[in-house]
Formats: sequence, C-alpha cells, structure tokens
Amino acid sequence: MSDTITIPSPADFHVHVRQGAMCELVTPHVAQGGIRTAYVMPNLVPPITSTSRALEYKAELEKIDPKTQWLMTLYLHPDVTPDEIRKAAKAGIKGVKSYPRGVTTNSNSGIEDYSVYYPVFEAMEEEGLVLNLHGEVPSDPAKNISILNAEKHFLTHLTKLADDFPKLRIVLEHATTAEAISTVSSLPSNVACTITAHHLWLTIDTVAPQPHHFCKPLAKEPKDRQALQDAIKSGNPKFFLGSDSAPHPTSSKAPGLTDDGEPSPCAAGVYTSPFLVPLVATLLESFGALDKLEGFISAHGRKFYGEPAKESDSLTLKREKTKVPGLIRGQGGVEVVPFWAGKELEWAISQS
Amino acid sequence: MSDTITIPSPADFHVHVRQGAMCELVTPHVAQGGIRTAYVMPNLVPPITSTSRALEYKAELEKIDPKTQWLMTLYLHPDVTPDEIRKAAKAGIKGVKSYPRGVTTNSNSGIEDYSVYYPVFEAMEEEGLVLNLHGEVPSDPAKNISILNAEKHFLTHLTKLADDFPKLRIVLEHATTAEAISTVSSLPSNVACTITAHHLWLTIDTVAPQPHHFCKPLAKEPKDRQALQDAIKSGNPKFFLGSDSAPHPTSSKAPGLTDDGEPSPCAAGVYTSPFLVPLVATLLESFGALDKLEGFISAHGRKFYGEPAKESDSLTLKREKTKVPGLIRGQGGVEVVPFWAGKELEWAISQS
Repeated sequence: MSDTITIPSPADFHVHVRQGAMCELVTPHVAQGGIRTAYVMPNLVPPITSTSRALEYKAELEKIDPKTQWLMTLYLHPDVTPDEIRKAAKAGIKGVKSYPRGVTTNSNSGIEDYSVYYPVFEAMEEEGLVLNLHGEVPSDPAKNISILNAEKHFLTHLTKLADDFPKLRIVLEHATTAEAISTVSSLPSNVACTITAHHLWLTIDTVAPQPHHFCKPLAKEPKDRQALQDAIKSGNPKFFLGSDSAPHPTSSKAPGLTDDGEPSPCAAGVYTSPFLVPLVATLLESFGALDKLEGFISAHGRKFYGEPAKESDSLTLKREKTKVPGLIRGQGGVEVVPFWAGKELEWAISQS
Repeated sequence: MSDTITIPSPADFHVHVRQGAMCELVTPHVAQGGIRTAYVMPNLVPPITSTSRALEYKAELEKIDPKTQWLMTLYLHPDVTPDEIRKAAKAGIKGVKSYPRGVTTNSNSGIEDYSVYYPVFEAMEEEGLVLNLHGEVPSDPAKNISILNAEKHFLTHLTKLADDFPKLRIVLEHATTAEAISTVSSLPSNVACTITAHHLWLTIDTVAPQPHHFCKPLAKEPKDRQALQDAIKSGNPKFFLGSDSAPHPTSSKAPGLTDDGEPSPCAAGVYTSPFLVPLVATLLESFGALDKLEGFISAHGRKFYGEPAKESDSLTLKREKTKVPGLIRGQGGVEVVPFWAGKELEWAISQS
C-alpha cells in the first residue's frame, strides 16, 4: 500500500466560515485542511440574500485567505428574485441554498413552501445556478415528524423539484439516511448529494451523549452510515464531499443556565475544516474506499459544478499519524473543539 | 376543575439515590417530591449484590430520611445465587434489577445472557421477588442495533422470560417505545411496566440538543411519547410510575476535555425527585389524564408490589404555579441541574 497519495485540487462543496472573530479563525483552516475550492454557505446573521452582500463576504474571505477559491451562494428568501438570480449569475455566484424554516443554525429566515420560489428556480435553471437543499422538513409532533425522520420526509420535496426542474442542478446537502442515498441514486444526473466526513463515522449512539457531535441533520442508525459509506464505495459521481464543517464556540456546545435557570440548548454543528482531507482519507481507508478518495473529494463535485481542477493545485498526503488538537483558539476568546479532538488521523498533508 | 387533589401515599417504583455526598443531597428530595415509598436501584459502585450490602444501604438511607419507606433491590450478577435470593427474601428485599452490560450508568457488571440466571429466577418466583428489567440490548452496529432500537430488540427477551416464568413478577422499566407498551399490554398480568415522568414530555428533538435531557433509554419519537401517554390514559394497571430519577453532577453533564484533548461523553440521567408528584400531575393534566393520577402514582404499582397505601400517608396537591429551581446544591460542591429547570409546574404540594 502506498504511503503517499496525490489528489488534484480537493474541494469542499459545503462549508461554513461564519463572521467576525470566528471567521478570522476558521477561514485559514480551509486551506490548512487541504481544500483548494470552498463552496461557502450563506447562513450569516442576517443571511446573505443579495449579490452585493455575497461579493462583500467573498472579499472578506479573500482578504483573509486570497489563495483559496471561494464559491459564493445566496440564501433562498423572498429578497432573492429572478432578477437577483440573473445579477448573481453575472457576478459569478454559484448557487442558492434553501433552509426549511427553523431546522438548523440561523435558519429562521428559511422557507416554508417551495412553490412560491418556482420563478426563482426557473431563473436559476436558465442561468445555471445550483440549488442546494438542506433536506429536512420542520418537526411536527402531531405528524410524528422529528429530527429522526425529517430527512426522509423531505425526499418527496426533492423528487418533486427534480421532476419539475429537469435542467436545474440540485444538491441534496449532507445526506444522513439510507433513504436519501437511495432516492438521489434513482433521480437523474442533475441531482447530486453531498456527504460530510463526520456522518461517515457518527451514529446516534455517539451523538446522543456528546454535544460536540450534535449536528443537523442528526447522525442516524448504523445502517444509514453504512449506506453513506456504500455510496462512496460505489464510485457513483452523484456523491461528493460537502463537509458542512460548522464551527461553534465551545460555550454554545456546553451551555450554562439562562437567567430563568433553564439550561440553554447546545448549538448544532461539527467542525472538521482544519484537517478535512486527512480525516476523509482516514475514514475512507477505514471502510475500504481509499481508492475512491479522488472522486469523492475532487473529481465528482468539480464535474457537477463545472469547476475543473487546476494541475498546479494538487495536494499530497503522507501516511503519518497526527493527533487532532483538543481545542482551537482564536482572537477575542474564540475557542472551538474540533471533531475527533484528541483522536489520531492516519494521514497528514505532506505538501501543499 | 378542583384546585386540590389528595392521593393516598404516592410511590416511585424506580429511583436512584446514589452514594456519598450525592446521596446526602438527593435522598431527602424523594419525600420532598411527595413520594412515600421508594423502590431503590442497586447500581452503586460496586453494585449491590448481597443482602447484607442492601441492608447496610437501606440503613444509610433511613438515617438520612427515616420517614420514607425504602424498598431495596439486588443487582443481577453471578454473586446473586438462589441461596442469596432466599436470604434476601427473608430480609425483606423486594426485587432484583437486571442491567444488560454497558447500556447505562454503572452497568459494566451487567448481564449478557439470561439463561444462566434461570435458577435464580426460579428462586425469585418461589420467594416472590420481582425481576426489574432495564429493557435494552447492547448496541451492535453490525446488526444495526443502536440506542434507538435497543428497547425494541429487548422485547423478545421480555416475552421469553414471561413465557418461561409465568409466576415471576416482571417489570419492564422506563418504557420509551410504542412497541414496548404494546408488548407489555399483550403479556399476562405478572408483567408490568414503569413509565418515567420525563419520557412523557421529551422526544428525540428535545434530547439531542440538551445534555440535561440525555438519558437511557433515550426518549424517542412523538408517536412513542403518545403511546406512553395513552397507556396512562387507558388506566391499565400494568403501567405505573417509576421515575428513574437519576442525578448526575453538573460537571458530568457539561463535560470538558480529557488529558488527551478528547471531549468526555455526558452522563445519562434526568433528575426529577425533588418535585416528582407535582411534575407528574402537571404532565398528566397536560394530556388529559389527571383523573388517572392516583392509579399511576399509587394504586397500580402498590397493588403489583403488594405494598398497600397507608391511610395516614396521603398527599394533597394544590393548583399553584411553582418554578423548578435551576441548580440544586449540596455539600462538598455537589450540584445537580434538575429536569424542567426554570420551567413552571402547575401543581404544588400543599400538605405532607
């Protein structure tokens, strides 16, 4: 077995780089983790709903790290009109992210009904923008909809959108269930799916006792994890890396009591950017899919998005045990506990 | 609607009162929460596997609170022989608790196979001791067994034990699934089932983001919660209160990083003792079952265990909004965040 791997220009098609001090801390970690192209989520406060705001944000990221290619997105919202889509396309914005209302971090501006956005989707189809779907419906106890089956219930929406917009490129983001893998596999090639690193390792058993593993969508049963792993092993180009790396300050992961004495809930998100490519290599090797690494973290997503790898951007990994740090500290007291803190990776970046 | 309720001698048929400083803190809370009779779990460190140790523990509890009736149990373990069962019965010990290995707090001494205990169960049947089952099988990713379906997979063991020991009284503890309710309902009257207060309120949606709601068995889907509520509403005497009130120090609910930099997992348990009867009344009223309060927290369990209520032990509740404290402090820095911290109960104890 080789002790080095060279990958042409790794890409992460779903990453959160936040705002303010957290943005300063985590933005350089994208490149540090081996990623050359990052598809940036728009769920800031307030959400990014205009081309001008997306370009401002891109400039901020380029100021922090000019070498990484930042691909920008808008947040699906009434402000995102067909005209705004055409403007966005001209400005090089790549996609529009849809958050069902209230299902994850900063999703209070999220949508409740897709049909009102059909003119927007038509404009996206014409302009070649990608629709990125957070694929969960809001919980509804009366209908037995919870965070366990919220993704499964979303799949009818995915199928309907794919049927109604056969030329629109659609990505189901961060799939976590066997049902999602199966549905995406059965849909035409305009529908793809990102898979995170952490969902290749977590199940409900390791999420429930560990706030640092709590994320949306929740990791589910072993059979679901198996389905994600199998999708990668199959080499199907519909499936590629979108890390959903989502840093939260340590304080929001181990919450205290509010003024009312009520314990505050912990924030949803798992942070993998600083060592993403070594982590993905370690995980893929653990389930016998190291030969699919290039497809999963570069070729498949790049082909779907039309963002070919540059020759000069290749990354070499070496087989070397590296310990994930326990705590990553930034300016102004910002602290993040990364995924796999204290655990050992089997691979390290040898040459950038 | 009446503004007071009088209940003959409330009983909690599943409670953890711990050891050391935590025991000093929480033991008086049982009576404070309105409970007259407490069925005490044996999962101490080391577990209680002998009559003499159970009697010592009982004496410790009586020293702290002599007024509460403490019903004692043994921990199913190779040390618990048929002879020990006969000794335990003579000493007034009421039951034996079985923990599948590794599924919850201090269960490392738990059992892996019931058949080796058949002679013990025969002795229990003869002596009238109750078998209390933590009804979860250990997780096994290869078989897709996780903490989500561990209880469902246990039900075949429950059914087999009930078939093999038709005269043994068996309690499935802290049921959390519709399948458990349905299985217990279908088994003969020697099989009963405890239901906690917290599982009448929690679902996976409120557990996943909140370490203070993490417990084993995990709260599951809305349909499961509905089944627990419906079991109580039905008035079926097989179902009665076992709070599984299980205090953990705040530090083990908001864990830090180990020396390796790895975040430690949070402890499983929800603490309800200090306001248990008002909480149960509030919850039962919320789903239209206040008329079943007496059966659920006194009559059904007392009849099953053969521990009739004493006239003099009745408890009166009054309709009065009371806020649950955010933090309960004991000696030596012991701190516990109770369930529903900061929330309002609709009922209070008016007269003990």
